[in-house]
Amino acid sequence: MVNQVQRVDGSFQASKSDSSGASNSGGESSKDSSRCSTPVLDADRTDRLRDKMRRRMESGDRWFSLEFFPPRTSNGAVNLISRFDRMGSGGPLFIDVTWHPAGDPGSDKETSSMMIASTAVNYCGLESILHLTCANQTKEQITGHLAKAKRLGLKNIMALRGDPVADVWEEEECGFNYATDLVKHIRWEFDDYFDICVAGYPTGHPEAESYEVDLKHLKEKVDAGADFIITQLFFRAESFLKFVKDCRAIGITCPILPGIFPIQGYQSLRQLVKLSKLEVPEEITSVIEPIRDNDAAIRNYGIQHAVGMCRVLLETGDVPGLHFYTLNREVATMEVLKQLGLWIEDPRRPLPWALSANPKRKVEDVRPIFWASRPKSYIYRTQDWDEFPNGRWGNSSSPAFGELNDYYLFYLKSKSSKDDLLKMWGEELMNEESVFEVFTNYITGQPNHCGHKVMCLPWNDDPLAPETNLLKDELEKVNRRGILTINSQPNINGKPSSDPIVGWGPPGGYVFQKAYLEFFTSSENVTALLKVLKKYEPRVNYHIVNVQGKNTTNAPDLQPNAVTWGIFPGREIVQPTVVDPVSFMYWKDEAFGLWIEQWAKLYEEESPSRMIIQYIHDNYYLVNLVDNDFPLDSCLSQVIDDMFELLDAPLEAME
Amino acid sequence: MVNQVQRVDGSFQASKSDSSGASNSGGESSKDSSRCSTPVLDADRTDRLRDKMRRRMESGDRWFSLEFFPPRTSNGAVNLISRFDRMGSGGPLFIDVTWHPAGDPGSDKETSSMMIASTAVNYCGLESILHLTCANQTKEQITGHLAKAKRLGLKNIMALRGDPVADVWEEEECGFNYATDLVKHIRWEFDDYFDICVAGYPTGHPEAESYEVDLKHLKEKVDAGADFIITQLFFRAESFLKFVKDCRAIGITCPILPGIFPIQGYQSLRQLVKLSKLEVPEEITSVIEPIRDNDAAIRNYGIQHAVGMCRVLLETGDVPGLHFYTLNREVATMEVLKQLGLWIEDPRRPLPWALSANPKRKVEDVRPIFWASRPKSYIYRTQDWDEFPNGRWGNSSSPAFGELNDYYLFYLKSKSSKDDLLKMWGEELMNEESVFEVFTNYITGQPNHCGHKVMCLPWNDDPLAPETNLLKDELEKVNRRGILTINSQPNINGKPSSDPIVGWGPPGGYVFQKAYLEFFTSSENVTALLKVLKKYEPRVNYHIVNVQGKNTTNAPDLQPNAVTWGIFPGREIVQPTVVDPVSFMYWKDEAFGLWIEQWAKLYEEESPSRMIIQYIHDNYYLVNLVDNDFPLDSCLSQVIDDMFELLDAPLEAME
Repeated sequence: MVNQVQRVDGSFQASKSDSSGASNSGGESSKDSSRCSTPVLDADRTDRLRDKMRRRMESGDRWFSLEFFPPRTSNGAVNLISRFDRMGSGGPLFIDVTWHPAGDPGSDKETSSMMIASTAVNYCGLESILHLTCANQTKEQITGHLAKAKRLGLKNIMALRGDPVADVWEEEECGFNYATDLVKHIRWEFDDYFDICVAGYPTGHPEAESYEVDLKHLKEKVDAGADFIITQLFFRAESFLKFVKDCRAIGITCPILPGIFPIQGYQSLRQLVKLSKLEVPEEITSVIEPIRDNDAAIRNYGIQHAVGMCRVLLETGDVPGLHFYTLNREVATMEVLKQLGLWIEDPRRPLPWALSANPKRKVEDVRPIFWASRPKSYIYRTQDWDEFPNGRWGNSSSPAFGELNDYYLFYLKSKSSKDDLLKMWGEELMNEESVFEVFTNYITGQPNHCGHKVMCLPWNDDPLAPETNLLKDELEKVNRRGILTINSQPNINGKPSSDPIVGWGPPGGYVFQKAYLEFFTSSENVTALLKVLKKYEPRVNYHIVNVQGKNTTNAPDLQPNAVTWGIFPGREIVQPTVVDPVSFMYWKDEAFGLWIEQWAKLYEEESPSRMIIQYIHDNYYLVNLVDNDFPLDSCLSQVIDDMFELLDAPLEAME
Repeated sequence: MVNQVQRVDGSFQASKSDSSGASNSGGESSKDSSRCSTPVLDADRTDRLRDKMRRRMESGDRWFSLEFFPPRTSNGAVNLISRFDRMGSGGPLFIDVTWHPAGDPGSDKETSSMMIASTAVNYCGLESILHLTCANQTKEQITGHLAKAKRLGLKNIMALRGDPVADVWEEEECGFNYATDLVKHIRWEFDDYFDICVAGYPTGHPEAESYEVDLKHLKEKVDAGADFIITQLFFRAESFLKFVKDCRAIGITCPILPGIFPIQGYQSLRQLVKLSKLEVPEEITSVIEPIRDNDAAIRNYGIQHAVGMCRVLLETGDVPGLHFYTLNREVATMEVLKQLGLWIEDPRRPLPWALSANPKRKVEDVRPIFWASRPKSYIYRTQDWDEFPNGRWGNSSSPAFGELNDYYLFYLKSKSSKDDLLKMWGEELMNEESVFEVFTNYITGQPNHCGHKVMCLPWNDDPLAPETNLLKDELEKVNRRGILTINSQPNINGKPSSDPIVGWGPPGGYVFQKAYLEFFTSSENVTALLKVLKKYEPRVNYHIVNVQGKNTTNAPDLQPNAVTWGIFPGREIVQPTVVDPVSFMYWKDEAFGLWIEQWAKLYEEESPSRMIIQYIHDNYYLVNLVDNDFPLDSCLSQVIDDMFELLDAPLEAME
């Protein structure tokens, strides 16, 4: 694409401090320069939601979005958040979280609408819309919710009236009677900060005088400042298409997204219909009633019906995206999306790690490798930073990590129950070798001696990443002998950025990695390792630390070592992961802490199992190794082999 | 080397804002973090002179340094500065510039001591010492000189008394009578900012009561705050060695550097001896007198004598470095240094371009590629920046370039005379092809039709760099056809950082480049080129601009493109050169301006030759091309071939 960059001679030249041609001192005029401060690998990342929609519509890309409601329990929250991660991987343009007035929706409770939406944005990296209803609330309360949402990094609001407390609706003086009032209030108090979505009713709002009056109200909401419309669910494509036509006829020009409700069960359909006062068409009831007790059959029908309706909608060319009422369930919606070809199996990653969607972090593009498997912990511990590392880790002016005094934070909890963890990690440990076995089984994916697969470890909440799988044989061998690996990556010497396993960033680029290995091991092993490492100077950088913080390293001047980087057309170099000696000292507290918090505490105090884990915690070292010679075959495996050879040799070799 | 980084648990942990274990907000405590803000590729770069000396002494590396005096004329200044560049390439630890009270030494004149030292530091990247004498000056004058030196980026002062105006020395009330007073004054007014050097007299100061009294004065100077001593010249190694022994005996512990004076001619020796009131030993006069009219013979003797004396000094092991009185000449000193093995033929480059020695620029590690052959112009135009790009060009907050309204600045002048330039670039140009030929001859190194080699071009003050030579055949071919290349680099896919031609940075690293080509060419060529470039999307990035600023590019969002980078053990990635679209618009003014200022103005107004250059200036485009696919063979030559093929094709192909 050729850009005639007229602005280089227009606005750009005009930005110079003095057009008289006199010498330009440079310092003053720099603020209004057109240059960007970050390579912007992914335009989507910095755009606001309405701009993303616009760009998708311009390019003809269709999207989908997903609606969830807040959970009732803390366990439900943990489950919902891992659902966000799984469903987020399919590439929704956004998700939205409903507002439940009865559930203290604006509070700090882990189950509140506000906190669930915040978690989606900050920890799952999902563009999110928070619903907000105005019925029965004061202006001050509403403003308070909005200010809090803004503070938490939320950028989009679905402005709704909400249901009256009483059965009959009474207009309040000075209050909010309609969603329009809420839209106006948001724009009045927060100017253009939020993107605002409003609800449309393809068959008219149940309380509206008429379909036409309801359309008029919708027009008022849009005129008041709404950016796009999501509709209530409907059962026939025609209803939606007529609705869009009628909206356009009265001058509503913004995007209108159909709300798709895949029927997932007889009870949930009945309940929803009751709430929304919709009528289910006869062609549907006639199919469903006969199979009302067969959940699987109803779900299959619901998928088939939704796919059919969505195909009709998409084929018109007038529907830019589909909004799904998921009912917090995965299977039906994912199936519909897969059949429509909208589910993105392998979304392009702008960076090797998942970005947070908080606007405060939009320039962030460097992180320490240590939290690779615990990104939520990293985000939590850095949430108060004023600036985020961009370009270079070393340029960060905010190196202090928040304390991890919150193992109980719901989004850091293990998804597995205590029982499951005991099955995976051993009801009873005999010795250190029992621990080696757990690590080895995690790597190999083989069931342990009780027949259970080890699906996670305290440091890895998920099964082995495809990339780590590249090293599986090597890792198995060393874990068996007590090199307890918790993080690793192979070296990569210039693979295309489109590589399905190690690729990231825009097309046409090349990605690189230095081989990395991080593990716990005994002090005997460390003594031998340090001797061996002398042979690998300066090829291998290492940091070795125990729980007391006794630290040995050959890192020059405590500088970070870039271990993942990418070279892209027309861009500066991006180095998204580093081994940073300073943050390693914060990470070691967390990494050692997990032995106790997640593993030792599964067992009774004073029990042998607990004492074994405590012993490892107290006596093992945490080691990281980087092989700087990324164009050659990694030598890290050889380093470990050399270490064992030295240990196996007659005693005098150790002198 | 293993560092037991105790500070990670000591000072480092203590730098956290709160030791109570409460959550750390990160913002406050960041200032006192131990992290560095730059990868520090070269420790020498950030150390002060006395620290560099200490590190060299610890490691047993011997060094040399060079003394120059300020020139009398502006042409002399141009010559001296190119001498700095040539002699700087041999790796002196520092140079020093003498202070000539009669020559308005503290002024802004291009020949003043102050400006010559500033040029050495800022434009030639040389660690420099400015001499300063205190005789006959007020405290205010002295302070003024020192403040100015500091402002200009000078960090080292040689504190001298200087000669009295009258023949007989009289102590002044409240003035500076001795160098000791000056040392004290510098420390009083500027604390520890400057490194201070003082003079030592191996055979005693000519005006001192005695050798012993003189030693006592020297001790006072050191006690007052001097960091090291450089001695007056001497003719016998024993004189220096005895002097050092005597200094140590009275408690002088700082480095003492011998001042070496290679005898270069009979007259200069006589003059110096008269000034310094030294006696030339009989073993020298007896050799010299008979050959007093044979300059070459005397110089050869001088070299031989100096080498012999230096060998004796170095072999004692007590002499860490040698200081040379060059008399602003190159040959003798270089020859002595080469024979001693101290001249570094191929100094390791910390970055691909030469660093400025101004402390303000010490973090600078990214520059636009455009000024590769005109680094002094780049330094001049960015001298007022408050910050220098570090890590990423895009992070720079100082993108505004100073105007280049100073083609007459002495250090930007061509080293060649108008006559020489006319011989190289043509007494008379016939047409555009005459210009093509000049460019082609510059590339090939072949003499032009009048028998003159083209040693420089307005955009390239020096013959072709070894790196560009790699592309010589390609460049010759395209210049012949009117692709007038002014800057280029080949692609490099991971060569060792020790590579003699393209290597830079610390050992054990790998350097990379994207192929780059920059040239002037006609608008007809540009039209065809733009058609051809469509086939090379997104592999090739381009910027095409004419003198009016009509600009065509496919650079995404005006982002810079990194074209040189290096990966090093234990460090973040360094990307020292970028193609930056914003600074390209500043560069194009300079690049087009050079046609007129340096070339057209050689000819009479209205002359055909001048009109040809003016035509090119008015009608040609400046083009830069980057091939982003650095692991593949560069396609840029193919792009140009395709362009010519299109131009050579029947007309309809151009449609």
